[in-house]
Amino acid sequence: MIRKIEHLGIAVKSIARSDDIISKLLGSEAYKHEAVGSENVLTSFFKLGETKIELLEATSDDSAIARFIEKRGEGIHHIALDVVGIEEELARLKDLGFQLIHDKPKAGADGKKIAFLHPKSTNGILVELCEDA
Amino acid sequence: MIRKIEHLGIAVKSIARSDDIISKLLGSEAYKHEAVGSENVLTSFFKLGETKIELLEATSDDSAIARFIEKRGEGIHHIALDVVGIEEELARLKDLGFQLIHDKPKAGADGKKIAFLHPKSTNGILVELCEDA
Repeated sequence: MIRKIEHLGIAVKSIARSDDIISKLLGSEAYKHEAVGSENVLTSFFKLGETKIELLEATSDDSAIARFIEKRGEGIHHIALDVVGIEEELARLKDLGFQLIHDKPKAGADGKKIAFLHPKSTNGILVELCEDA
Repeated sequence: MIRKIEHLGIAVKSIARSDDIISKLLGSEAYKHEAVGSENVLTSFFKLGETKIELLEATSDDSAIARFIEKRGEGIHHIALDVVGIEEELARLKDLGFQLIHDKPKAGADGKKIAFLHPKSTNGILVELCEDA
């Protein structure tokens, strides 16, 4: 079951610079910074109602975030949906014809189990499913 | 004051086709369809926690949505923030150096007063402010 938007992921060139922009925009500061070595990214998180804004800065030129910015510039990178029963959701979506990037959940930032759907099957939107591990 | 994400706007080529995709993804149907003549778009809305997904299909080749799809393909077009006191928020953001597309709120879909910020000043994110009219 999909409950809500867990976060929106924003690809940025510099967390330091974008922390400043987003904190001015929202009127609140980032509450957490986290390096995710497996994805070659630095992240920061802002609360926004029941959801979050996650800024993502690449720490390596061949990370997905670096490639995204090279192609499309800074901006919204993905939408993460908070689900109950991530394995069941992946099976449900696969049965419906959605293309999975990850058949099984893996460990992500913020202590979550995560899996991505391919934007080809979701109207060009990179969708992450996530569940508290 | 910014309270939450009011909706995420998704640019699509066909509402009919994308209603099907998004309803399968979320496991729920669109609860509303609305034509917004002033913007040359058809829209549909899906509930997602405290926020909404708004699909936008261009009804004219020179609409912002048609131009977006031509440049970038289908995908996330804008993020709308629910604010209290939209005029005060616009003044606050202008003072902080954000570039406003609309200096004053105008009438938008879904019975809202809306105004957009330019993505140049918001990390490539097209941000809409909106408030119940």
